Amino acid sequence: MKAIVQTTEGDPAALELQEVPKPTLQPGEVLVKVAASGVNRADLTQAEGNYPPPKGASDILGLECAGEIADAGDTNREVGEKVGALLVGGGYAEYVAVPEGQLLPIPEGFSFAETAAVIETACTVWSNIVMEVGLSKGETILIHGGGGGIGLMAIQIAKAIGATVAVTAGSAEKLEVCKSYGADILINYKEQDFAEELKNQCDVILDIVGGPYLKKNMFALAKGGRMITIGLQGGNKAEINMGVMMMKDISLHGTTLRRRSPEVKAEIVRQTVKNVWPMLEDGRVKNHIHETLPLADAAKALNHLVESSHTGKVVLVQ
Amino acid sequence: MKAIVQTTEGDPAALELQEVPKPTLQPGEVLVKVAASGVNRADLTQAEGNYPPPKGASDILGLECAGEIADAGDTNREVGEKVGALLVGGGYAEYVAVPEGQLLPIPEGFSFAETAAVIETACTVWSNIVMEVGLSKGETILIHGGGGGIGLMAIQIAKAIGATVAVTAGSAEKLEVCKSYGADILINYKEQDFAEELKNQCDVILDIVGGPYLKKNMFALAKGGRMITIGLQGGNKAEINMGVMMMKDISLHGTTLRRRSPEVKAEIVRQTVKNVWPMLEDGRVKNHIHETLPLADAAKALNHLVESSHTGKVVLVQ
Ligand SMILES: NC(=O)c1ccc[n+]([C@@H]2O[C@H](COP(=O)([O-])OP(=O)(O)OC[C@H]3O[C@@H](n4cnc5c(N)ncnc54)[C@H](OP(=O)(O)O)[C@@H]3O)[C@@H](O)[C@H]2O)c1
Ligand SMILES: NC(=O)c1ccc[n+]([C@@H]2O[C@H](COP(=O)([O-])OP(=O)(O)OC[C@H]3O[C@@H](n4cnc5c(N)ncnc54)[C@H](OP(=O)(O)O)[C@@H]3O)[C@@H](O)[C@H]2O)c1
Repeated sequence: MKAIVQTTEGDPAALELQEVPKPTLQPGEVLVKVAASGVNRADLTQAEGNYPPPKGASDILGLECAGEIADAGDTNREVGEKVGALLVGGGYAEYVAVPEGQLLPIPEGFSFAETAAVIETACTVWSNIVMEVGLSKGETILIHGGGGGIGLMAIQIAKAIGATVAVTAGSAEKLEVCKSYGADILINYKEQDFAEELKNQCDVILDIVGGPYLKKNMFALAKGGRMITIGLQGGNKAEINMGVMMMKDISLHGTTLRRRSPEVKAEIVRQTVKNVWPMLEDGRVKNHIHETLPLADAAKALNHLVESSHTGKVVLVQ
Repeated sequence: MKAIVQTTEGDPAALELQEVPKPTLQPGEVLVKVAASGVNRADLTQAEGNYPPPKGASDILGLECAGEIADAGDTNREVGEKVGALLVGGGYAEYVAVPEGQLLPIPEGFSFAETAAVIETACTVWSNIVMEVGLSKGETILIHGGGGGIGLMAIQIAKAIGATVAVTAGSAEKLEVCKSYGADILINYKEQDFAEELKNQCDVILDIVGGPYLKKNMFALAKGGRMITIGLQGGNKAEINMGVMMMKDISLHGTTLRRRSPEVKAEIVRQTVKNVWPMLEDGRVKNHIHETLPLADAAKALNHLVESSHTGKVVLVQ
């Protein structure tokens, strides 16, 4: 089969479409013929050599896709069934092996590209802001990086839950897009200090920056607030004052969807389909695809993330 | 009325029984004539000048008591009713004003002294290991300071829930007491490295040490583990590696019972009475009173905590 192969280690520009062996199925897996693959920042981090795939996972990039079942393996699925899939890797390819629990239905009216653009973000956002830290109606959430793939999904899910949504982004253009998807409070992090603007006000913070924001995030958290860190774009180390945690009754959480067990992933997929798929189907949550490119242009796709020139999602199609 | 007054600021030995004004009742409060007061490490920290009472609270020491209602204020309580009370302060006195939501019944068969010895620890342990981080059957919990007031209560509640219990303490004698209350894994922190012993094994950690233990605690946490910090006996600052939080899907929590709102306190009291009082009444959770002293000997009582010469609780009676 054809797949994206990295020809120079650590260089995200050195990606070529090449011939590689088709994956073989493990018990409980199906083979999906990929029609579209979503691009995630983790793909870039992996291509840069900073995020090795978990043991046993494919070293081909790609954490989500949509397509048709080509081989149902030992499952009761039908060959030809159209599906989406949450992947541990391997999505930038013609075929990928997927544990059955990580298959998702195509939302009504969605194309393959539109489906591939929502799986990783919907599962990440739902599992974190709801399952992990219980965002609820009337609460305030701060979403860092509101204009990214995760950001635009998080804004819309949080609004659907009934929360007040604050976002940070690095440009007026991205903030305008955030606003059009429902964000209530817009903060340009290059010009404003979000911690001063939101002091003691945030019940939940969805953090993608890590170390350099820890102190400010704790300052912005309200009493009883919860922060969930899913990205470390600024680095992983920080000094922490545990007294602030105690005085404010706050909690700090960290998760990586990719490293969760297949059982936990299956439960996350189940809850996401149950709760977010209806939001996609009735229009409460909308796709925002920045650009659709052929699979062979994977390097060009990742370059959007290098330059942060995109808003929402980039998708590769075959 | 008589109450313990500090005659030299910052000196926990300078405590005298003196005449002071009786508290006046706020709406929703009752006046309790104190028969017994529990001694907590927070009393010592406050007497040392390091833990100022929250705004509006009495500056008399004492976070829990048992006695009789002397004035029901605007509530429907009866004068003469025997009660326990969770206090924001003021327990080392003849009378104390208590919001009705912070009253607890006397567990069947318990004396005033026995009641005063369990309120703060039961409410703290239940609200943290169950309400905050959801310890459940079959999980492993590490309890730091197993031989203290909080420690012995936590061991027994965790065993009643069906957890495996590991404890740290600084002497073989304290570890023996922990064992007699149900602890399964005994670690002398002066001789052993708890993090090596329990690497990746703890679903929950009840932490009272803070900064110096953070890295080790994170090492000891299992995937999906939760740490709840309620004391900072070693200090409040630490370096944190947020990458570890993400890779292990862990969460770090901090709370202070004393600084929670009256509404939250009332809910904690309600849940503690519902869940822990039956354990006290059927013997699953037992009192361990190290010494009972007259109220006038408050300084002597606090000195046990200075020297850590006690196991379990010290109680002051009138
Ligand atoms: N742990 C998990 O399970 C998991 C799952 C999925 C994604 N993630 C992580 O989530 C993050 C977002 O992923 P993504 O795919 O949505 O990437 P993305 O599309 O590149 O979005 C990231 C956004 O963050 C903004 N940003 C960068 N630095 C910022 C700062 N200091 N403050 C505020 N915003 C900042 C960027 O735009 P501007 O700077 O131009 O505003 C960009 O819009 C990544 O770190 C990714 O690794 C984690
Ligand atoms: N946040 C809240 O809401 C809340 C409520 C109640 C209590 N607390 C806190 O909880 C802690 C315990 O309170 P307590 O009243 O039970 O005090 P305690 O009776 O003095 O117990 C503390 C125990 O910790 C042990 N210890 C000291 N350093 C240790 C270390 N490095 N590693 C392991 N054990 C160590 C001590 O014994 P050895 O060192 O001799 O073994 C002692 O048995 C205190 O910090 C208190 O302030 C917090």
